[in-house]
Amino acid sequence: MQQKVLINGQWQAANAESEFSAFNPMTGEQLSEVYPVSSWSDIDKALSAAVESFVQLQKISRETVAAFLERYASLIDSNKNAIVEMANLETGLPLSPRLADVEIPRTVGQLRQAAQAAQEASWTQPTIDSANNIRSLLTAIGPVAVFGPNNFPLAFGSISGGDFAAAIAAGNPVIAKAHPSHPGTTRLFAELAQKACEETGLPQATVQLVYAMSNESGLKMVSDPRIAATGFTGSRPAGLALKKAAEDAGKLIYLELSSVNPVIVLSGALEQRGNAIAEEFALSCTMAAGQLCTKPGLLIVQENESTDSFVQAACEKFQQGPVGTLLSPNAADHIAAASSELVAAGATLLTSTRELEDGRFCHSNTLLEVSGKSFIADSKTFQTEIFGNASLIIRSESLEQTQKILSLLEGNLTGCVYSAEDGIDDTDYDLIAATLTNKVGRVINDKMPTGVAVSPAMNHGGPFPSSGHPGFTAVGLPAAIKRFAALKCFDNVRQHRLPDLLQDKNPDGKIWRLIDGAWTQGDLGA
Amino acid sequence: MQQKVLINGQWQAANAESEFSAFNPMTGEQLSEVYPVSSWSDIDKALSAAVESFVQLQKISRETVAAFLERYASLIDSNKNAIVEMANLETGLPLSPRLADVEIPRTVGQLRQAAQAAQEASWTQPTIDSANNIRSLLTAIGPVAVFGPNNFPLAFGSISGGDFAAAIAAGNPVIAKAHPSHPGTTRLFAELAQKACEETGLPQATVQLVYAMSNESGLKMVSDPRIAATGFTGSRPAGLALKKAAEDAGKLIYLELSSVNPVIVLSGALEQRGNAIAEEFALSCTMAAGQLCTKPGLLIVQENESTDSFVQAACEKFQQGPVGTLLSPNAADHIAAASSELVAAGATLLTSTRELEDGRFCHSNTLLEVSGKSFIADSKTFQTEIFGNASLIIRSESLEQTQKILSLLEGNLTGCVYSAEDGIDDTDYDLIAATLTNKVGRVINDKMPTGVAVSPAMNHGGPFPSSGHPGFTAVGLPAAIKRFAALKCFDNVRQHRLPDLLQDKNPDGKIWRLIDGAWTQGDLGA
Repeated sequence: MQQKVLINGQWQAANAESEFSAFNPMTGEQLSEVYPVSSWSDIDKALSAAVESFVQLQKISRETVAAFLERYASLIDSNKNAIVEMANLETGLPLSPRLADVEIPRTVGQLRQAAQAAQEASWTQPTIDSANNIRSLLTAIGPVAVFGPNNFPLAFGSISGGDFAAAIAAGNPVIAKAHPSHPGTTRLFAELAQKACEETGLPQATVQLVYAMSNESGLKMVSDPRIAATGFTGSRPAGLALKKAAEDAGKLIYLELSSVNPVIVLSGALEQRGNAIAEEFALSCTMAAGQLCTKPGLLIVQENESTDSFVQAACEKFQQGPVGTLLSPNAADHIAAASSELVAAGATLLTSTRELEDGRFCHSNTLLEVSGKSFIADSKTFQTEIFGNASLIIRSESLEQTQKILSLLEGNLTGCVYSAEDGIDDTDYDLIAATLTNKVGRVINDKMPTGVAVSPAMNHGGPFPSSGHPGFTAVGLPAAIKRFAALKCFDNVRQHRLPDLLQDKNPDGKIWRLIDGAWTQGDLGA
Repeated sequence: MQQKVLINGQWQAANAESEFSAFNPMTGEQLSEVYPVSSWSDIDKALSAAVESFVQLQKISRETVAAFLERYASLIDSNKNAIVEMANLETGLPLSPRLADVEIPRTVGQLRQAAQAAQEASWTQPTIDSANNIRSLLTAIGPVAVFGPNNFPLAFGSISGGDFAAAIAAGNPVIAKAHPSHPGTTRLFAELAQKACEETGLPQATVQLVYAMSNESGLKMVSDPRIAATGFTGSRPAGLALKKAAEDAGKLIYLELSSVNPVIVLSGALEQRGNAIAEEFALSCTMAAGQLCTKPGLLIVQENESTDSFVQAACEKFQQGPVGTLLSPNAADHIAAASSELVAAGATLLTSTRELEDGRFCHSNTLLEVSGKSFIADSKTFQTEIFGNASLIIRSESLEQTQKILSLLEGNLTGCVYSAEDGIDDTDYDLIAATLTNKVGRVINDKMPTGVAVSPAMNHGGPFPSSGHPGFTAVGLPAAIKRFAALKCFDNVRQHRLPDLLQDKNPDGKIWRLIDGAWTQGDLGA
């Protein structure tokens, strides 16, 4: 029986134009549950319901929105076993530690942080100019569409992850589109979200779910007049098509598209701890089969007497390390094809193919190398993201060449530099720091980029094409909420008509407001 | 002799593909100074120089950037006579009060506020998570292109106005494109800016100026890899073309495109002070010949016994008020054509044509009216912005119809509501407030929208197409600066490599930073 979609608070039969099932990546078998590909009429209904719920949401208190997020977090926590089992079945990601001990706490914690931010409200930056009686703040923007990626079924899930939490915390309804690789996991979340909605009294279309739609319907949805903004994490071609459709219609879209996350190992660090870095690198590339937005896809190492042994050490770790399970049926082919392309362009394949289980979605850990000169000659090809357990080492002839390589990079989420602890690399660091900083959203020292803490200071974003707007982060609260907010100004508006955050009295005496040029938690005129 | 462009700190002969002269709108005569239309090679040189200067700018202190803005403001102030005379000649805007007493103080004040924000730096929102040693802030984004509009030669000028001040305050170099209606005014500013640059030691390509370029070069510039962001204020077709080019290339562009700025007069206000409101309305529509982004282009009044006399009063004021000078040779034709289009669609022209001076760019003040029903039947046509001294009154049958009209509006910069002082309109206000608020960037009570204070609480922005991103304002400091900033995160980066704003010690003990969840002006660990 085909699963139902969640529209306007009701689980209902989809108006399906086709159907699909997910796979068990560990066996390659198709799973038995059948999900609808919604036709436009489902999306149309969801959009209209979202608009109606948005009107109601605007009258609902911050406390109620926070209560929903809290309650939803608790429901996830108490149903975590069912969720991680389903996610494991659909994604092959290990139950533990990955799903149960990393993603569940991250997801629950993120929703709780969003609850706190929704209630605390200082992210709205209430600003009052009492002389002119002009007041402004950031506030809800309207219905938000969220397209989740395949690689974090929980913490980046369309109805459970960072975009969802941020959009709801700002006071917006969300239309989630499940990723087709884990529809069952998404359904479980939607059931709990809907329960939390009902229990806390949010409008019935605050959270809606469809599983899949045609590309055409996707483009139509993100550019529909009823949508205010979209959050998308996924493949570059799909993201670029959605970006174009949305922006041509004047709609906001926040995207996370692709990133090769360059790592630079400076000479002193290479000599002093090359082996340890090689190990970290291999681990960071192959964990979760390299299916992480911040996988180090490029490592730049300067040619000297330690380089060969560094590359050899990395290669051995790739060769010997566990081979993770890939998320989709065509992922292994993608890695193989992309590696062949790099070889055709002049890279050398360092790793050999291993014998792997039949059926399981997987590909041997793959390490390639290329000279700095070759990279520079065809930098576009060599910086194409390979989503999976494959990375490319660039052997740079000199710091000048490293500098040149960096200058040819597109925008990335992260850029790491390993340097000697005794300071002998400091001059080199200074020479490349500015170029690297301008190319990335997060500069990292002496560790791999794969950890992305949910921290108020995190930036999970960066220059295009790593994201669509370098001023915003997709991870980290309350900062990520601002993506789904509009600036609203009230000019000479009578006191009782103002949002409570902009009235003379500070609603709870705790919210930070910029009053007449000074940040304060006090009342106006106090 | 053709005027020179300012590229890489040098006034130099343009590589011109053609040339042009501005007009004196008061006489219709072409002015004698000849300006180049730059070919791509000029733009290309400017882009490369801007990239180089950006690298240098990143090493320059906030104090130096602030000193430049201060010095430039002072130079404008001491050269204001020459500036306002040139601007008056090129735009026909009155020397006084408009140019000398409004725009000059606004321009100078804005640059000084930008200087203060550049130095004070709290707008960068430094955020420190000490447990994870992750730190982030907003910082310079790279070379910014600024396209200024024709209607504010000083305060919104490409090299003197709000976008310029904001982009520089963030630490970015600016490539300014003059508006072809006032190239001489822009040249005077560029001379002073260049002088201030030299005196304060900013990199030589921090401020560059070209006068004009082909549409093709414009599209190429905003999408060039060397550009980080563009600020554009101007016509909707030009803006949309630039938007598409920039965004297809993954580039940021902030636009102010068009707005009809609806004004709603509720029944109680109409009865109690209809005449006064009619007078305010007419004045607001006809001042500066209606060539203001926030001109009230639509007024919605509910049909009752006071409506006829309100409309008549407004009409008389339009009829009797002074007829301002238009900025461009084709502006009068534009108004005539747009009015005819509204009449063809079912509006009634209320004003008659007056005899006006030969030569001067001008058009009779024009007031039209249409029924609510007709508006609803063709809302797209009736909400087309007429840039000039023309407005449309909508006679609404009921509050429900007003509600419907509002729901059909595109995004606008402002929305005003006039309501009775004694509270009898409060129920009606509540019924329309949410719809109006969602359609505009600034909600105004009991006054016309034409005043746009340079206030930290201002929002000169709004939903598309009034702007390109509803989360940002083009006027008001420090908020407007954030448009030209990128979020940068430093993860585990060694203390001495951090920007001073993110080091443990608060650089001057005054900057507000979010440290471990609490806003403070103190040091980390203090």
